[in-house]
Amino acid sequence: MRHYPASIKRLIAAMTRLPGIGEKTAERLAMHILSMPQKEVASLAESLLEMKQSVRLCSLCHSLSDADLCPICRDPSRDTGVLCVVEQPADMAAIEKSGAFTGRYHILQGVLSPMCGVGPGDIRVQELFDRIGKGGIGEVILATSTSVEGEATAAYLAERLRGLPVKLTRIASGVPMGGDLKYVDAVTLKRAMDTRHGV
Amino acid sequence: MRHYPASIKRLIAAMTRLPGIGEKTAERLAMHILSMPQKEVASLAESLLEMKQSVRLCSLCHSLSDADLCPICRDPSRDTGVLCVVEQPADMAAIEKSGAFTGRYHILQGVLSPMCGVGPGDIRVQELFDRIGKGGIGEVILATSTSVEGEATAAYLAERLRGLPVKLTRIASGVPMGGDLKYVDAVTLKRAMDTRHGV
Repeated sequence: MRHYPASIKRLIAAMTRLPGIGEKTAERLAMHILSMPQKEVASLAESLLEMKQSVRLCSLCHSLSDADLCPICRDPSRDTGVLCVVEQPADMAAIEKSGAFTGRYHILQGVLSPMCGVGPGDIRVQELFDRIGKGGIGEVILATSTSVEGEATAAYLAERLRGLPVKLTRIASGVPMGGDLKYVDAVTLKRAMDTRHGV
Repeated sequence: MRHYPASIKRLIAAMTRLPGIGEKTAERLAMHILSMPQKEVASLAESLLEMKQSVRLCSLCHSLSDADLCPICRDPSRDTGVLCVVEQPADMAAIEKSGAFTGRYHILQGVLSPMCGVGPGDIRVQELFDRIGKGGIGEVILATSTSVEGEATAAYLAERLRGLPVKLTRIASGVPMGGDLKYVDAVTLKRAMDTRHGV
């Protein structure tokens, strides 16, 4: 990189700190940005700063928001009786994309992970109990991921919520749609067998 | 994307305009940028703007530079008698990385392409003749790429430079190092045969 002017080297260095961007990609991006109109570069830089400054967490569901309440918590057409508990805003985005859910969310902002020292006090567990405690919620869907930590978090929440007057469900796990059985791993197949349902 | 706050949507839209960055990658980058310290985000935005503002073309070789002359043209240890003609600054960067060349460069800033309406007047051909005309250059290496346009540009330059008192050379093309002959395409193999040399 030493033959590039210092300002290009600085941008390349800053971009390689982003996930999935190596030196080659950063170099290609820098060359493209050089060829972009000044106005577009300014707008890109500004949207970076603006996002960082304006985005905060929704005070109700802890999802990303640019106001006190996020667009979903503000939406009067959403079903307030069903709560879907996910780990991260990106998980919420994925479920929204599927169009399979019309209720509201609760974003934990993490998973329980004793190995990394993350306990119930470090994620939004208390806030979840507070929301359920206020009443009006008939079902809580545990939609944490099926990783070891996600499963443990779902089990922990199920244990602690069991006494409350809400229906508890867990998203199904099994063979992915379009999946070929012979390529599916043993743990997934076992789960698909164990949680088989009538048709 | 509709469930993200507007400022995140704007950044994702701006990033998907960059080459090789789709919606998924832009979303992942935006989530990462949100988790970065404010100072780092500000520094990234600033390096974008600074690069765009400070980078111009070297007045001698037309490479990217942040001063009137680029670091290579300023370097007194470089051999001023050999000129390597390339298409783009990135090609120069690739040759520099190889460490195989210690002379100076001339960046054409493009290739001849009648299909796209690019003629000799649209790239830095006249500037190349002016540099050679000033004397002191003993060899001109034509290092345009081996694409159809790159080859045509090299042939055009060779034709026009033939009368001048400089040695004209073309970078070798053939089987890449570490390449397995059976996977090399026919055109490359033909070229490797045609330009074979004594050992």
